[in-house]
Amino acid sequence: MEVYLDNAATTPVKEEVVKAVVRALEKEYGNPSSLHSKGVEVEKSIKAIRKSIAKALGCLDQEIYFTSGGTEANNIAIRGIVEANKRAGNHIITTKIEHPSVLNTFKELEAKGYEVTYLNVDAEGFIALEELSDCIKANTILVSIMQVNNEVGSIQPIEEIAKLIKQKNKQVLFHVDAIQSFGKLKLKVEDLQVDSLSISGHKIHAPKGIGALYVKKDTKIIPIITGGGQEMGLRVGTENVPGIYGLGEAVQLIMQDQQSYINKLNENKRYFLKILKEKVRDVNILSPIKDSFAPHIISVAFMGVKSEVLLHSLEQEGVYVSSGSACSSKKKGFSHVLTAMKLKEAVIDSTIRFSVSDATTAKELDYAVEKINHQVTMLRKIMKR
Amino acid sequence: MEVYLDNAATTPVKEEVVKAVVRALEKEYGNPSSLHSKGVEVEKSIKAIRKSIAKALGCLDQEIYFTSGGTEANNIAIRGIVEANKRAGNHIITTKIEHPSVLNTFKELEAKGYEVTYLNVDAEGFIALEELSDCIKANTILVSIMQVNNEVGSIQPIEEIAKLIKQKNKQVLFHVDAIQSFGKLKLKVEDLQVDSLSISGHKIHAPKGIGALYVKKDTKIIPIITGGGQEMGLRVGTENVPGIYGLGEAVQLIMQDQQSYINKLNENKRYFLKILKEKVRDVNILSPIKDSFAPHIISVAFMGVKSEVLLHSLEQEGVYVSSGSACSSKKKGFSHVLTAMKLKEAVIDSTIRFSVSDATTAKELDYAVEKINHQVTMLRKIMKR
Repeated sequence: MEVYLDNAATTPVKEEVVKAVVRALEKEYGNPSSLHSKGVEVEKSIKAIRKSIAKALGCLDQEIYFTSGGTEANNIAIRGIVEANKRAGNHIITTKIEHPSVLNTFKELEAKGYEVTYLNVDAEGFIALEELSDCIKANTILVSIMQVNNEVGSIQPIEEIAKLIKQKNKQVLFHVDAIQSFGKLKLKVEDLQVDSLSISGHKIHAPKGIGALYVKKDTKIIPIITGGGQEMGLRVGTENVPGIYGLGEAVQLIMQDQQSYINKLNENKRYFLKILKEKVRDVNILSPIKDSFAPHIISVAFMGVKSEVLLHSLEQEGVYVSSGSACSSKKKGFSHVLTAMKLKEAVIDSTIRFSVSDATTAKELDYAVEKINHQVTMLRKIMKR
Repeated sequence: MEVYLDNAATTPVKEEVVKAVVRALEKEYGNPSSLHSKGVEVEKSIKAIRKSIAKALGCLDQEIYFTSGGTEANNIAIRGIVEANKRAGNHIITTKIEHPSVLNTFKELEAKGYEVTYLNVDAEGFIALEELSDCIKANTILVSIMQVNNEVGSIQPIEEIAKLIKQKNKQVLFHVDAIQSFGKLKLKVEDLQVDSLSISGHKIHAPKGIGALYVKKDTKIIPIITGGGQEMGLRVGTENVPGIYGLGEAVQLIMQDQQSYINKLNENKRYFLKILKEKVRDVNILSPIKDSFAPHIISVAFMGVKSEVLLHSLEQEGVYVSSGSACSSKKKGFSHVLTAMKLKEAVIDSTIRFSVSDATTAKELDYAVEKINHQVTMLRKIMKR
């Protein structure tokens, strides 16, 4: 049996999405910039998909820009806003638990001379609103905070944060990395009052290589690449049409009944944690069943077992999981997220991230937990020798 | 009948390429950064594809970086080299007939304070080597020149240009936009002696949204986006795996017998021009049959007929062509390429670009020329009224 529990790293592409991609490859292959109908038909499809994503996010069509993925979306937002607003100040704020596409971008801006505040998080992975409030200054131009953390699933209260930021200093722009939250939480940018927000296709069963960025109308932002003028000039280059078709289909699949989708994820998380706690002893759950945690991410420390060893043992049984974050797991060293949460080394070193999809079945979870128990028990015995 | 003669704008995706993309979507969906086998198998495939593209270009595997397309590849090369080498000088050189992804990037750098030289071209679309030689100075850091022009097909003598540049000033780096030449010309970067070179997937029957950049080992270059460290840090973000699989397949399809592929393009160009000249009077061929012109681009002015009107008339007959360049044809105004060639307004205004593929048939070309003749004759009559 194969059980893929690494859906926060990337997801299998849904059948309907494959069909949409193939349609773009085989039939609607025109260049959207072409003046003839082969181009115009594709341009129209892209327009319709932009509309449906705008609807899903609760914004205007012209506020949605297609990108090559989440990393680029975060880079366009952060670099584009900072560069366009640098005359207003040089202080920028983020958290210590961001994805590398945000964190490393802030580090580079810091090296370039910007003053950066990295917000702390508590032991569960939440920032303190008072700390954020205290550090917003007259020269602050940008705050960038992820909605759902990719390693533990903590959900930052974006709406409250946005209010707080704008109360303290109206000129501060607020970017949200919603790559792990889009689809999995009900989010509308009009409610959240954010200035920009990034999403990624391959986390929601669309292909890799496509993402989108919401940028609020009239926000001062400049592009990081230049060329033919596509995507209203903010993200130029011939559009990734198969990717856009795939993203459109994936968003529609979730949004046609988002509540059922979310329920299914929650159900899977609950069931997994229930049987895991029943079967395996000495586990430290970092992603509890709470409204403030995402429905698909389950981070668990198996005390006394090295996570990388467990990962490879489970792989032998056909169970695919992650240790540390998926996008930088090849890097040496401890997870920067768990470190920022000030967890003990023994916990950090034994943490595995499971992430479910709506297609994950109870049978698969039963099988996974059986194998986890078997491997954890065996590895603990070996360690004790 | 449908005859697609806009292959320089974008190409239909080959059947085998679609299969490779679908394999990445349906089966090999792992994240290459994941530590388990679902990731490792994809990582291995990407490694093999990188090797085959390196072989096609005559370079080392680690000199190939996958990008989201040609525009991004040009931007990474130009911005990355200029930023990394700005201490060595602030003079950069390009031509007046580059693609917008190069030209607009130079214009932005010019606005930022860099001194830019835009080389002139002659009436056929070629730069003068003496002019280039004369303008290379002690503070020149980059020259960027396209190999095949996308509008008229003129081939700049890249090997000679590279020698000349390095003779005049060894520190100058040389970037080549090979987006319209890759596959269609036999090019090996080791022979060309260039420092970076960009290619695009969707011009060679791979999907849109994927490209690659060659950067010579030890070249000083810095990334324009930051994040998880993929692509040796120069182009981060989860890899566009379906795009890479598609590009790999498309390159293999051409490279397994490149000479036949080139012969077929040449044959189509020759045949098209032959019957066009036989059937249609008052045509001005801007892309002659010569070794210094690409085998797939055929730019023709139909005197007395507005190109946009002809384009739409042909579209009604199922013949798809381009007026001006494909990537910016929605912009108002005259082609910057034909303007730089100092062609008469009457020529510029009546120029259509036809571009063939290896799948274009004689029957299709017969049909197209018949329709062209019919429409041109009719439109000329209307104009004379």
